[in-house]
Amino acid sequence: MSLAVAATGWRLLLLLCAAGLGAVGAPQPPNILLLLMDDMGWGDLGVNGEPSRETPNLDRMAAEGMLFPNFYAASPLCSPSRAALLTGRLPIRSGFYTSNARARNAYTPQEVVGGIPDSERLLPALLKKAGYASKIVGKWHLGHRPQFHPLRHGFDEWFGSPNCHFGPYDNRARPNIPVYRDWEMVGRYYEEFPINLKTGEANLTQLYLGEALDFIRRQRSLRRPFFLYWAVDATHAPVYASRPFLGSSQRGRYGDAVREIDDSVGRILALLRDLGLQDSTFVFFTSDNGAALISAPKQGGSNGPFLCGKETTFEGGMREPAIAWWPGHVPAGQGQLINRPIFYYRGNTLMAATAGQHKAHFWTWTNSWEEFQQGVDFCPGQNVSGVTTHTQEEHTALPLIFHLGRDPGERFPLSFASAEYQEALRRLGPAVQQHQATLQPGQPQLNVCNVAVMNWAPPGCEKLGKCLPPPPSAPEKCSWPH
Amino acid sequence: MSLAVAATGWRLLLLLCAAGLGAVGAPQPPNILLLLMDDMGWGDLGVNGEPSRETPNLDRMAAEGMLFPNFYAASPLCSPSRAALLTGRLPIRSGFYTSNARARNAYTPQEVVGGIPDSERLLPALLKKAGYASKIVGKWHLGHRPQFHPLRHGFDEWFGSPNCHFGPYDNRARPNIPVYRDWEMVGRYYEEFPINLKTGEANLTQLYLGEALDFIRRQRSLRRPFFLYWAVDATHAPVYASRPFLGSSQRGRYGDAVREIDDSVGRILALLRDLGLQDSTFVFFTSDNGAALISAPKQGGSNGPFLCGKETTFEGGMREPAIAWWPGHVPAGQGQLINRPIFYYRGNTLMAATAGQHKAHFWTWTNSWEEFQQGVDFCPGQNVSGVTTHTQEEHTALPLIFHLGRDPGERFPLSFASAEYQEALRRLGPAVQQHQATLQPGQPQLNVCNVAVMNWAPPGCEKLGKCLPPPPSAPEKCSWPH
Repeated sequence: MSLAVAATGWRLLLLLCAAGLGAVGAPQPPNILLLLMDDMGWGDLGVNGEPSRETPNLDRMAAEGMLFPNFYAASPLCSPSRAALLTGRLPIRSGFYTSNARARNAYTPQEVVGGIPDSERLLPALLKKAGYASKIVGKWHLGHRPQFHPLRHGFDEWFGSPNCHFGPYDNRARPNIPVYRDWEMVGRYYEEFPINLKTGEANLTQLYLGEALDFIRRQRSLRRPFFLYWAVDATHAPVYASRPFLGSSQRGRYGDAVREIDDSVGRILALLRDLGLQDSTFVFFTSDNGAALISAPKQGGSNGPFLCGKETTFEGGMREPAIAWWPGHVPAGQGQLINRPIFYYRGNTLMAATAGQHKAHFWTWTNSWEEFQQGVDFCPGQNVSGVTTHTQEEHTALPLIFHLGRDPGERFPLSFASAEYQEALRRLGPAVQQHQATLQPGQPQLNVCNVAVMNWAPPGCEKLGKCLPPPPSAPEKCSWPH
Repeated sequence: MSLAVAATGWRLLLLLCAAGLGAVGAPQPPNILLLLMDDMGWGDLGVNGEPSRETPNLDRMAAEGMLFPNFYAASPLCSPSRAALLTGRLPIRSGFYTSNARARNAYTPQEVVGGIPDSERLLPALLKKAGYASKIVGKWHLGHRPQFHPLRHGFDEWFGSPNCHFGPYDNRARPNIPVYRDWEMVGRYYEEFPINLKTGEANLTQLYLGEALDFIRRQRSLRRPFFLYWAVDATHAPVYASRPFLGSSQRGRYGDAVREIDDSVGRILALLRDLGLQDSTFVFFTSDNGAALISAPKQGGSNGPFLCGKETTFEGGMREPAIAWWPGHVPAGQGQLINRPIFYYRGNTLMAATAGQHKAHFWTWTNSWEEFQQGVDFCPGQNVSGVTTHTQEEHTALPLIFHLGRDPGERFPLSFASAEYQEALRRLGPAVQQHQATLQPGQPQLNVCNVAVMNWAPPGCEKLGKCLPPPPSAPEKCSWPH
């Protein structure tokens, strides 16, 4: 197993498993816990410099394990990032993008028709062949129609929701998001699973924690290797926390949500220790994309020193907090920088790429002037002239190049005339050409929306008396709020 | 000794000493090492989230000791901050300011007539009464005329310079900065003590390290309690490092300087351990002001998530990296937030103050439009409308208030109409009134400049053949570049 590879991104788990599985006479493969945060930023961890230092359990996990300061999501938005994490493939390959508009971020709202294609092989399906039991707890976000159900893509169990918990809706024009246990809906957000938008109170993280602990205990008693994908969403607006954590943070409600998650991670690791599983369980913590600065400061986190946040291909959008923990196997320390290019996409547009410490932006924009003037701001208080643009600026001939070591905040573009710029450009060219020459874009999954495919009547709704009448089919091109 | 107090600022050392000294039958007082950085930013330490993680020794010092995420300098500029550190008094009290212009940052260039007044009692003078030997290594910056010499204000030894090492000068119009050993100049920067502006090579940090190690060894053999003030300046532009460290950092030349200092701190702590002094030596690490973003990214550091830098009263200007280390006495952990107001001054203008987590700005400006348009930028890539102003904006009636827990980057002013704003304003008023009612401003020391008082012919210059003829006296009002 090459843990150094982990520093460069999303291929981590496949590599890990490939290395640990299948050998004749190999020891029992490790259990795998993947703790995936929602809109949590690089700068939200004490160990990454959050000034209020309210993540003692994650900080301890980092001290005992390996901290990756240069770990990237494959997309600055939730669904494509999650698809990449579970498939090991860029969204442009798996189809988790839209081609409806250039440089368009896209995710899977209730109206979307598409989802994870059957042709994609997900981590839990690979692990199943190796004898693993797999569970997803929390947010799926890879499509909500029956063919996209997580139990059709390798998971054995599910407790959570297919879409994001924002809302609430009025139960008629747009159904509230269902919560599933395995194949059946067991209620809906804001109904059986309340989230109080006024107080921020919700018990969901505690439910997700209970599901995780229960699954670990059960697999332990069965002595079966397990994969747990713990995809909590309390740090996605509207952020929430359970009553004991509300008001517990110096950082407001967002901090309350972080504290509850941090506490939960501490309990999960403690259970592993109590069950004697710490030597046989690989735990990885990261987030799906950068903090949503549009929701800051009350409902959004921190990207530390990095520029902008969620929805952008600046570092604040895609550089993630990341910790690997496996006592006795993963040495304590910090991840080394790997000289492997990172490709930053929005939709099917290659916005930026790295070569070593140099990052080149081929296209810049955050959002439109129209949206910006309406108050949608992915870079509040951060304006780098010619960089954080509100029109789609093409720089493919002369990309804007930054040195991420000297300038992690992407505030000082190199001079085009400098020898360093010319040299970086020479290195970037072949890496990008090779990438593009071998790239086969997948069929775009996020182009078509249809109000009829929403969560009107998920399986199980009859038992609960919660089926809603679906409207007539009305397919249309998806459009995205920003 | 109340270490919690340390979190709030510059009274730390006096309190520490007062607590440890003078009691009948008290044990030998602790040795004190004060490691003061020059223009190093909060975000330059790995433990504070610097992404390249190149400060393993400081990170270890923080892990073994106490890290203060909320530690403040008393000024965003070198000389006033250093005066405050050694006197325990705000610069407005000690006289380390100018009244020549409103909100004017000021320091002690070679032309300045003033310096540390005899009426101020410095830490080494207090410690001398308790039997301590004291040495300053590095930059003094509290006045360079004979009456301001550090050995006249409590120090027993000095190796270093009275002013900052920027230059070089031409040796006639403005003398290069002298380097002293005790009472006599032993050479000048760029002459006997070379700093290669092109390559960044200089051996000064190694000299300063050697002086520190030698002093500690000597005092140990004499069994005398000691105070070492290690005020290195490699991270002040022009930044420098010795040859083994040049090119060693992912962060460029600034990072090379940080790495060399980090290595030196590791060696100093190792010596304490080797000599068995770790249980009897209190070590404190901090910086004089925020990173100089005007010099970034090649010659300036990082203020992490905080707004702006040196010269400003935003958090980036005055919140400092800070670590206390004293195994067995200072518990490992992180400093707690103390509910004690912080007062942010530029010159004699109270720019801002805190009450709990709320910070109110009574005046805003960074620098003038004229300077800004010439490229002098204390907040590159950071523009918060109405906050990072280029005119002197008065907000005393309705201050701009930020919640530093939710919004450490000071990017989201509270709404004037909010209950939170009104409540914060009610708490801020009495704290500011009490401060101002009891404040007795000192005689301003930094008002008068005179080319004749420069370092033309410091004591010792005759032996070296390096005396320069001073020009006629020409007193004038000091003016400051920005």
